[in-house]
Amino acid sequence: MSERIHAPSERTRVRRVPQRAAYDRPTIDAILDEALVCHVGFEGHGQPFVIPTTHVRIEDELYVHGSAASRMLEHGASGARLCITVTLVDGIVFARSAFHHSLNYRSVLILGEARAVSEPAEKLTVLAALVDRLSRGRSAEVRAPTEQELKATLVLALPLAEASAKVRTGGPIDDAADLSWPVWAGVVPLELRPLPALVAEPRALGREPPIVALRREPG
Amino acid sequence: MSERIHAPSERTRVRRVPQRAAYDRPTIDAILDEALVCHVGFEGHGQPFVIPTTHVRIEDELYVHGSAASRMLEHGASGARLCITVTLVDGIVFARSAFHHSLNYRSVLILGEARAVSEPAEKLTVLAALVDRLSRGRSAEVRAPTEQELKATLVLALPLAEASAKVRTGGPIDDAADLSWPVWAGVVPLELRPLPALVAEPRALGREPPIVALRREPG
Repeated sequence: MSERIHAPSERTRVRRVPQRAAYDRPTIDAILDEALVCHVGFEGHGQPFVIPTTHVRIEDELYVHGSAASRMLEHGASGARLCITVTLVDGIVFARSAFHHSLNYRSVLILGEARAVSEPAEKLTVLAALVDRLSRGRSAEVRAPTEQELKATLVLALPLAEASAKVRTGGPIDDAADLSWPVWAGVVPLELRPLPALVAEPRALGREPPIVALRREPG
Repeated sequence: MSERIHAPSERTRVRRVPQRAAYDRPTIDAILDEALVCHVGFEGHGQPFVIPTTHVRIEDELYVHGSAASRMLEHGASGARLCITVTLVDGIVFARSAFHHSLNYRSVLILGEARAVSEPAEKLTVLAALVDRLSRGRSAEVRAPTEQELKATLVLALPLAEASAKVRTGGPIDDAADLSWPVWAGVVPLELRPLPALVAEPRALGREPPIVALRREPG
Protein backbone atom coordinates (compact mmCIF):
# COMPACT_ATOMS: atom_id res chain seq x y z
CA MET A 1 0.00 0.00 0.00
CA SER A 2 2.98 2.33 0.02
CA GLU A 3 3.85 2.25 -3.70
CA ARG A 4 2.33 5.43 -5.08
CA ILE A 5 1.85 5.41 -8.81
CA HIS A 6 -0.97 7.92 -8.67
CA ALA A 7 -0.56 11.00 -6.56
CA PRO A 8 -3.90 11.67 -4.85
CA SER A 9 -5.80 14.73 -5.99
CA GLU A 10 -7.08 17.06 -3.28
CA ARG A 11 -10.53 15.50 -3.77
CA THR A 12 -9.53 11.84 -3.67
CA ARG A 13 -7.05 12.29 -0.82
CA VAL A 14 -8.36 10.15 2.03
CA ARG A 15 -8.94 12.48 4.96
CA ARG A 16 -10.25 10.11 7.61
CA VAL A 17 -7.69 7.57 8.94
CA PRO A 18 -5.16 8.38 6.18
CA GLN A 19 -2.97 5.38 7.07
CA ARG A 20 -5.72 3.23 5.50
CA ALA A 21 -5.35 4.98 2.15
CA ALA A 22 -3.72 3.56 -0.97
CA TYR A 23 -3.23 5.24 -4.30
CA ASP A 24 -1.33 2.55 -6.20
CA ARG A 25 -2.97 0.93 -9.19
CA PRO A 26 -2.37 -2.74 -8.23
CA THR A 27 -4.38 -2.21 -5.03
CA ILE A 28 -7.09 -0.24 -6.84
CA ASP A 29 -7.32 -2.68 -9.76
CA ALA A 30 -7.59 -5.76 -7.54
CA ILE A 31 -10.57 -4.28 -5.69
CA LEU A 32 -12.33 -3.19 -8.89
CA ASP A 33 -11.71 -6.57 -10.53
CA GLU A 34 -13.09 -8.56 -7.61
CA ALA A 35 -16.29 -6.63 -6.92
CA LEU A 36 -19.45 -7.58 -8.79
CA VAL A 37 -21.17 -4.23 -8.34
CA CYS A 38 -20.21 -0.59 -8.09
CA HIS A 39 -22.26 2.40 -6.91
CA VAL A 40 -22.50 5.31 -9.35
CA GLY A 41 -23.11 8.74 -7.83
CA PHE A 42 -24.35 11.69 -9.87
CA GLU A 43 -26.36 14.83 -9.29
CA GLY A 44 -29.64 15.63 -10.98
CA HIS A 45 -31.87 18.65 -10.26
CA GLY A 46 -30.08 19.40 -7.00
CA GLN A 47 -30.43 15.86 -5.68
CA PRO A 48 -27.63 13.29 -5.48
CA PHE A 49 -28.42 9.79 -6.72
CA VAL A 50 -26.50 6.56 -6.06
CA ILE A 51 -27.29 3.68 -8.42
CA PRO A 52 -25.81 0.17 -8.18
CA THR A 53 -24.67 -1.49 -11.37
CA THR A 54 -22.17 -4.01 -12.71
CA HIS A 55 -18.83 -2.87 -14.07
CA VAL A 56 -15.65 -4.09 -15.64
CA ARG A 57 -12.20 -2.56 -15.66
CA ILE A 58 -10.15 -2.66 -18.85
CA GLU A 59 -6.69 -1.16 -18.45
CA ASP A 60 -7.09 2.42 -17.24
CA GLU A 61 -10.87 2.80 -17.40
CA LEU A 62 -13.88 1.49 -15.52
CA TYR A 63 -16.81 0.64 -17.76
CA VAL A 64 -20.49 0.57 -16.82
CA HIS A 65 -23.37 -0.17 -19.16
CA GLY A 66 -27.11 -0.34 -19.32
CA SER A 67 -30.20 0.72 -21.17
CA ALA A 68 -29.90 3.90 -23.20
CA ALA A 69 -33.02 5.01 -21.27
CA SER A 70 -31.27 4.82 -17.89
CA ARG A 71 -31.24 8.06 -15.91
CA MET A 72 -27.78 7.32 -14.55
CA LEU A 73 -26.22 6.61 -17.95
CA GLU A 74 -28.02 9.56 -19.50
CA HIS A 75 -26.37 11.85 -16.94
CA GLY A 76 -22.98 10.19 -17.29
CA ALA A 77 -23.03 10.37 -21.08
CA SER A 78 -23.80 14.08 -21.00
CA GLY A 79 -20.50 14.82 -19.25
CA ALA A 80 -21.82 15.17 -15.71
CA ARG A 81 -19.28 14.62 -12.99
CA LEU A 82 -19.51 11.14 -11.51
CA CYS A 83 -18.28 9.33 -8.43
CA ILE A 84 -18.08 5.55 -8.69
CA THR A 85 -17.44 3.66 -5.46
CA VAL A 86 -16.73 -0.05 -5.06
CA THR A 87 -16.78 -1.74 -1.65
CA LEU A 88 -15.85 -5.25 -0.55
CA VAL A 89 -16.68 -6.25 3.02
CA ASP A 90 -14.10 -8.72 4.36
CA GLY A 91 -14.97 -9.15 7.99
CA ILE A 92 -16.58 -7.91 11.18
CA VAL A 93 -14.21 -6.53 13.83
CA PHE A 94 -15.42 -7.17 17.37
CA ALA A 95 -13.68 -4.93 19.89
CA ARG A 96 -13.89 -4.78 23.70
CA SER A 97 -15.58 -1.37 23.50
CA ALA A 98 -18.63 -0.44 21.42
CA PHE A 99 -16.62 2.47 20.03
CA HIS A 100 -13.91 0.36 18.37
CA HIS A 101 -16.20 -2.06 16.55
CA SER A 102 -15.53 -1.90 12.85
CA LEU A 103 -15.59 -3.69 9.52
CA ASN A 104 -12.65 -4.93 7.53
CA TYR A 105 -13.17 -3.72 4.00
CA ARG A 106 -11.51 -2.68 0.77
CA SER A 107 -13.04 0.22 -1.15
CA VAL A 108 -12.19 2.34 -4.18
CA LEU A 109 -13.53 5.79 -4.99
CA ILE A 110 -13.17 7.20 -8.52
CA LEU A 111 -14.02 10.77 -9.50
CA GLY A 112 -14.26 12.10 -13.00
CA GLU A 113 -16.24 12.63 -16.15
CA ALA A 114 -17.16 9.63 -18.24
CA ARG A 115 -17.07 9.32 -21.99
CA ALA A 116 -19.80 7.51 -23.89
CA VAL A 117 -18.37 4.59 -25.85
CA SER A 118 -19.83 4.92 -29.34
CA GLU A 119 -17.44 2.93 -31.51
CA PRO A 120 -19.09 -0.52 -32.08
CA ALA A 121 -15.85 -2.53 -31.82
CA GLU A 122 -14.99 -1.00 -28.44
CA LYS A 123 -18.57 -1.48 -27.28
CA LEU A 124 -18.42 -5.18 -28.22
CA THR A 125 -15.10 -5.57 -26.39
CA VAL A 126 -16.59 -4.06 -23.23
CA LEU A 127 -19.77 -6.15 -23.39
CA ALA A 128 -17.69 -9.32 -23.85
CA ALA A 129 -15.51 -8.35 -20.88
CA LEU A 130 -18.63 -7.83 -18.74
CA VAL A 131 -19.66 -11.44 -19.45
CA ASP A 132 -16.15 -12.91 -19.18
CA ARG A 133 -15.72 -11.16 -15.85
CA LEU A 134 -18.52 -13.43 -14.50
CA SER A 135 -17.05 -16.60 -16.01
CA ARG A 136 -13.87 -16.69 -18.04
CA GLY A 137 -14.30 -17.35 -21.76
CA ARG A 138 -18.08 -17.30 -21.65
CA SER A 139 -18.56 -14.44 -24.11
CA ALA A 140 -17.33 -16.73 -26.93
CA GLU A 141 -19.94 -19.38 -26.05
CA VAL A 142 -23.09 -17.26 -25.82
CA ARG A 143 -25.12 -15.59 -28.55
CA ALA A 144 -23.31 -12.36 -29.39
CA PRO A 145 -25.05 -8.96 -29.24
CA THR A 146 -27.13 -7.99 -32.26
CA GLU A 147 -26.93 -4.57 -33.87
CA GLN A 148 -30.25 -3.69 -32.23
CA GLU A 149 -29.01 -4.75 -28.77
CA LEU A 150 -25.85 -2.70 -29.28
CA LYS A 151 -27.93 0.36 -30.13
CA ALA A 152 -30.12 -0.11 -27.05
CA THR A 153 -27.05 -0.31 -24.79
CA LEU A 154 -25.16 2.69 -23.52
CA VAL A 155 -21.58 2.11 -22.37
CA LEU A 156 -19.68 4.66 -20.30
CA ALA A 157 -15.96 4.72 -19.58
CA LEU A 158 -14.63 6.49 -16.49
CA PRO A 159 -10.85 7.01 -16.39
CA LEU A 160 -9.01 5.81 -13.29
CA ALA A 161 -6.88 8.97 -13.25
CA GLU A 162 -8.51 10.24 -10.06
CA ALA A 163 -8.94 7.17 -7.86
CA SER A 164 -8.08 6.16 -4.32
CA ALA A 165 -8.45 3.02 -2.26
CA LYS A 166 -9.16 2.62 1.42
CA VAL A 167 -8.43 -0.66 3.15
CA ARG A 168 -8.92 -1.89 6.70
CA THR A 169 -7.46 -5.22 7.73
CA GLY A 170 -6.59 -6.91 11.00
CA GLY A 171 -8.05 -7.19 14.46
CA PRO A 172 -9.66 -4.69 16.82
CA ILE A 173 -7.63 -1.70 17.99
CA ASP A 174 -8.76 -1.43 21.57
CA ASP A 175 -7.71 1.09 24.16
CA ALA A 176 -5.08 -0.39 26.49
CA ALA A 177 -7.40 0.04 29.48
CA ASP A 178 -10.03 -2.17 27.79
CA LEU A 179 -7.81 -5.16 26.99
CA SER A 180 -8.89 -7.11 30.06
CA TRP A 181 -12.61 -6.48 29.47
CA PRO A 182 -14.30 -9.91 29.77
CA VAL A 183 -15.74 -10.18 26.27
CA TRP A 184 -14.65 -12.07 23.15
CA ALA A 185 -12.69 -9.86 20.76
CA GLY A 186 -11.43 -10.59 17.29
CA VAL A 187 -12.52 -10.80 13.68
CA VAL A 188 -15.19 -12.84 11.97
CA PRO A 189 -14.04 -12.96 8.31
CA LEU A 190 -16.78 -12.94 5.68
CA GLU A 191 -16.70 -14.74 2.37
CA LEU A 192 -18.89 -14.34 -0.67
CA ARG A 193 -19.18 -17.80 -2.17
CA PRO A 194 -21.12 -19.39 -5.00
CA LEU A 195 -23.78 -21.96 -4.08
CA PRO A 196 -24.78 -24.91 -6.29
CA ALA A 197 -25.99 -23.67 -9.67
CA LEU A 198 -29.69 -23.72 -10.59
CA VAL A 199 -30.15 -24.74 -14.21
CA ALA A 200 -32.71 -22.99 -16.43
CA GLU A 201 -35.11 -24.95 -18.63
CA PRO A 202 -34.77 -26.09 -21.37
CA ARG A 203 -31.40 -27.54 -20.49
CA ALA A 204 -28.50 -27.64 -22.92
CA LEU A 205 -27.73 -31.29 -22.40
CA GLY A 206 -24.23 -32.23 -21.38
CA ARG A 207 -23.26 -28.64 -20.56
CA GLU A 208 -21.62 -27.85 -17.25
CA PRO A 209 -22.48 -24.76 -15.19
CA PRO A 210 -19.94 -21.94 -15.51
CA ILE A 211 -17.20 -21.51 -12.95
CA VAL A 212 -17.80 -18.20 -11.27
CA ALA A 213 -14.84 -15.85 -11.03
CA LEU A 214 -14.96 -14.60 -7.44
CA ARG A 215 -11.50 -13.52 -6.50
CA ARG A 216 -12.25 -12.68 -2.90
CA GLU A 217 -9.57 -13.51 -0.39
CA PRO A 218 -11.15 -12.88 2.98
CA GLY A 219 -9.04 -11.44 5.75
CA MET B 1 -43.93 -6.70 -3.67
CA SER B 2 -47.38 -5.47 -4.55
CA GLU B 3 -48.38 -4.08 -1.15
CA ARG B 4 -47.81 -0.35 -1.42
CA ILE B 5 -47.58 1.39 1.90
CA HIS B 6 -45.44 4.19 0.52
CA ALA B 7 -46.46 5.83 -2.69
CA PRO B 8 -43.30 6.49 -4.70
CA SER B 9 -42.29 10.10 -5.15
CA GLU B 10 -41.46 11.22 -8.66
CA ARG B 11 -37.79 10.95 -7.74
CA THR B 12 -37.84 7.51 -6.14
CA ARG B 13 -40.18 6.02 -8.73
CA VAL B 14 -38.24 3.23 -10.44
CA ARG B 15 -38.08 4.09 -14.14
CA ARG B 16 -36.04 1.20 -15.51
CA VAL B 17 -37.84 -2.21 -15.45
CA PRO B 18 -40.63 -0.92 -13.18
CA GLN B 19 -41.96 -4.44 -12.51
CA ARG B 20 -38.87 -4.93 -10.33
CA ALA B 21 -39.86 -2.03 -8.08
CA ALA B 22 -41.26 -2.27 -4.57
CA TYR B 23 -42.35 0.53 -2.29
CA ASP B 24 -43.62 -1.45 0.71
CA ARG B 25 -41.82 -1.12 4.00
CA PRO B 26 -41.45 -4.85 4.81
CA THR B 27 -39.44 -5.31 1.58
CA ILE B 28 -37.43 -2.14 2.16
CA ASP B 29 -36.76 -2.91 5.84
CA ALA B 30 -35.60 -6.48 5.19
CA ILE B 31 -32.98 -5.27 2.71
CA LEU B 32 -31.75 -2.48 5.00
CA ASP B 33 -31.60 -4.83 7.99
CA GLU B 34 -29.61 -7.49 6.17
CA ALA B 35 -26.95 -5.33 4.51
CA LEU B 36 -23.76 -4.56 6.44
CA VAL B 37 -22.91 -1.43 4.45
CA CYS B 38 -24.71 1.36 2.66
CA HIS B 39 -23.40 3.93 0.18
CA VAL B 40 -24.04 7.57 1.06
CA GLY B 41 -24.21 10.01 -1.84
CA PHE B 42 -23.86 13.75 -1.39
CA GLU B 43 -22.67 16.71 -3.40
CA GLY B 44 -19.79 18.97 -2.45
CA HIS B 45 -18.36 21.81 -4.56
CA GLY B 46 -20.07 20.56 -7.72
CA GLN B 47 -18.77 17.01 -7.35
CA PRO B 48 -20.83 14.02 -6.22
CA PHE B 49 -19.28 11.73 -3.62
CA VAL B 50 -20.29 8.19 -2.67
CA ILE B 51 -18.95 6.93 0.66
CA PRO B 52 -19.49 3.43 2.08
CA THR B 53 -20.37 3.14 5.75
CA THR B 54 -22.25 0.92 8.19
CA HIS B 55 -25.84 1.68 9.10
CA VAL B 56 -28.70 0.53 11.25
CA ARG B 57 -32.41 0.99 10.80
CA ILE B 58 -34.56 1.83 13.81
CA GLU B 59 -38.24 2.09 13.01
CA ASP B 60 -38.67 4.74 10.32
CA GLU B 61 -35.13 6.07 10.08
CA LEU B 62 -31.79 4.86 8.79
CA TYR B 63 -28.87 5.85 10.99
CA VAL B 64 -25.25 6.29 9.97
CA HIS B 65 -22.40 7.38 12.20
CA GLY B 66 -18.75 8.24 12.19
CA SER B 67 -16.15 10.73 13.22
CA ALA B 68 -17.32 14.29 13.67
CA ALA B 69 -14.47 15.16 11.26
CA SER B 70 -15.93 13.08 8.41
CA ARG B 71 -16.63 15.00 5.21
CA MET B 72 -19.72 12.89 4.52
CA LEU B 73 -21.25 13.39 7.96
CA GLU B 74 -20.33 17.07 7.95
CA HIS B 75 -22.35 17.52 4.75
CA GLY B 76 -25.23 15.40 5.98
CA ALA B 77 -25.44 17.24 9.29
CA SER B 78 -25.63 20.59 7.55
CA GLY B 79 -28.90 19.65 5.86
CA ALA B 80 -27.51 18.70 2.45
CA ARG B 81 -29.68 16.40 0.39
CA LEU B 82 -28.52 12.81 0.61
CA CYS B 83 -29.07 9.59 -1.28
CA ILE B 84 -28.35 6.39 0.63
CA THR B 85 -28.30 3.19 -1.40
CA VAL B 86 -28.05 -0.37 -0.07
CA THR B 87 -27.38 -3.31 -2.39
CA LEU B 88 -27.35 -7.06 -1.77
CA VAL B 89 -26.08 -9.29 -4.57
CA ASP B 90 -27.89 -12.63 -4.53
CA GLY B 91 -26.71 -14.41 -7.65
CA ILE B 92 -25.28 -14.33 -11.16
CA VAL B 93 -27.76 -14.91 -13.98
CA PHE B 94 -26.22 -16.72 -16.95
CA ALA B 95 -28.32 -16.34 -20.09
CA ARG B 96 -27.92 -17.84 -23.58
CA SER B 97 -27.15 -14.39 -25.00
CA ALA B 98 -24.55 -11.91 -23.74
CA PHE B 99 -27.29 -9.29 -23.65
CA HIS B 100 -29.48 -11.04 -21.08
CA HIS B 101 -26.78 -11.77 -18.51
CA SER B 102 -27.70 -10.16 -15.23
CA LEU B 103 -27.38 -10.22 -11.46
CA ASN B 104 -30.04 -11.14 -8.96
CA TYR B 105 -30.02 -8.40 -6.37
CA ARG B 106 -32.07 -6.49 -3.83
CA SER B 107 -31.44 -2.77 -3.48
CA VAL B 108 -32.98 0.18 -1.65
CA LEU B 109 -32.57 3.86 -2.53
CA ILE B 110 -33.48 6.52 0.04
CA LEU B 111 -33.60 10.24 -0.71
CA GLY B 112 -33.91 13.01 1.83
CA GLU B 113 -32.31 15.34 4.29
CA ALA B 114 -30.78 13.91 7.43
CA ARG B 115 -31.02 15.26 10.92
CA ALA B 116 -28.04 15.22 13.26
CA VAL B 117 -28.82 13.21 16.40
CA SER B 118 -27.68 15.40 19.28
CA GLU B 119 -29.63 14.05 22.24
CA PRO B 120 -27.21 11.74 24.18
CA ALA B 121 -29.84 9.09 25.03
CA GLU B 122 -30.85 8.70 21.38
CA LYS B 123 -27.20 8.65 20.35
CA LEU B 124 -26.50 5.85 22.82
CA THR B 125 -29.49 3.88 21.55
CA VAL B 126 -28.24 4.15 17.97
CA LEU B 127 -24.67 3.21 18.85
CA ALA B 128 -25.92 0.18 20.79
CA ALA B 129 -28.09 -0.84 17.83
CA LEU B 130 -25.09 -0.58 15.50
CA VAL B 131 -23.23 -3.12 17.67
CA ASP B 132 -26.24 -5.38 18.28
CA ARG B 133 -26.89 -5.45 14.55
CA LEU B 134 -23.55 -7.32 14.20
CA SER B 135 -24.27 -9.74 17.02
CA ARG B 136 -27.45 -9.70 19.07
CA GLY B 137 -27.07 -8.52 22.66
CA ARG B 138 -23.42 -7.60 22.33
CA SER B 139 -23.81 -3.92 23.24
CA ALA B 140 -24.60 -4.95 26.83
CA GLU B 141 -21.36 -6.97 27.06
CA VAL B 142 -18.84 -4.48 25.73
CA ARG B 143 -17.44 -1.35 27.33
CA ALA B 144 -20.03 1.38 26.77
CA PRO B 145 -19.20 4.67 25.02
CA THR B 146 -17.60 7.34 27.18
CA GLU B 147 -18.72 10.94 27.12
CA GLN B 148 -15.64 11.81 25.08
CA GLU B 149 -16.38 9.07 22.51
CA LEU B 150 -19.96 10.28 22.25
CA LYS B 151 -18.76 13.80 21.54
CA ALA B 152 -16.35 12.57 18.86
CA THR B 153 -19.14 10.66 17.11
CA LEU B 154 -21.64 12.22 14.75
CA VAL B 155 -24.89 10.33 14.19
CA LEU B 156 -27.24 11.13 11.32
CA ALA B 157 -30.83 9.96 10.87
CA LEU B 158 -32.35 9.79 7.40
CA PRO B 159 -36.14 9.26 7.30
CA LEU B 160 -37.44 6.39 5.16
CA ALA B 161 -40.27 8.57 3.86
CA GLU B 162 -38.84 8.66 0.34
CA ALA B 163 -37.54 5.16 -0.31
CA SER B 164 -37.90 2.51 -2.96
CA ALA B 165 -36.64 -1.02 -3.45
CA LYS B 166 -35.65 -2.80 -6.62
CA VAL B 167 -35.44 -6.58 -6.67
CA ARG B 168 -34.45 -9.07 -9.35
CA THR B 169 -34.97 -12.77 -8.70
CA GLY B 170 -35.20 -15.89 -10.83
CA GLY B 171 -33.53 -17.28 -13.90
CA PRO B 172 -32.44 -15.77 -17.21
CA ILE B 173 -35.07 -14.21 -19.46
CA ASP B 174 -33.84 -15.27 -22.86
CA ASP B 175 -35.33 -14.50 -26.23
CA ALA B 176 -37.37 -17.47 -27.50
CA ALA B 177 -35.06 -17.82 -30.49
CA ASP B 178 -32.06 -18.33 -28.16
CA LEU B 179 -33.51 -21.11 -25.99
CA SER B 180 -31.79 -23.88 -27.94
CA TRP B 181 -28.39 -22.16 -27.93
CA PRO B 182 -25.91 -24.83 -26.78
CA VAL B 183 -24.66 -23.18 -23.60
CA TRP B 184 -25.43 -23.70 -19.92
CA ALA B 185 -28.00 -21.21 -18.62
CA GLY B 186 -29.26 -20.63 -15.12
CA VAL B 187 -28.36 -18.94 -11.87
CA VAL B 188 -25.36 -19.29 -9.58
CA PRO B 189 -26.65 -18.06 -6.19
CA LEU B 190 -24.17 -16.21 -4.00
CA GLU B 191 -23.99 -16.32 -0.25
CA LEU B 192 -22.15 -14.10 2.18
CA ARG B 193 -21.09 -16.36 5.01
CA PRO B 194 -18.99 -16.00 8.16
CA LEU B 195 -15.74 -17.96 8.30
CA PRO B 196 -14.16 -19.29 11.52
CA ALA B 197 -13.50 -16.43 13.93
CA LEU B 198 -9.97 -15.15 14.57
CA VAL B 199 -9.49 -14.32 18.24
CA ALA B 200 -7.57 -11.21 19.31
CA GLU B 201 -4.91 -11.34 22.00
CA PRO B 202 -5.10 -11.18 24.97
CA ARG B 203 -7.97 -13.65 25.04
CA ALA B 204 -10.87 -13.39 27.42
CA LEU B 205 -10.70 -16.96 28.63
CA GLY B 206 -13.77 -19.08 28.32
CA ARG B 207 -15.57 -16.60 26.06
CA GLU B 208 -17.16 -17.79 22.83
CA PRO B 209 -16.97 -15.81 19.57
CA PRO B 210 -20.14 -13.85 18.78
CA ILE B 211 -22.75 -15.29 16.45
CA VAL B 212 -22.89 -13.01 13.45
CA ALA B 213 -26.32 -11.83 12.38
CA LEU B 214 -26.28 -12.30 8.59
CA ARG B 215 -29.84 -12.67 7.50
CA ARG B 216 -29.12 -13.32 3.84
CA GLU B 217 -31.36 -15.84 2.15
CA PRO B 218 -29.78 -16.38 -1.24
CA GLY B 219 -32.03 -16.88 -4.27
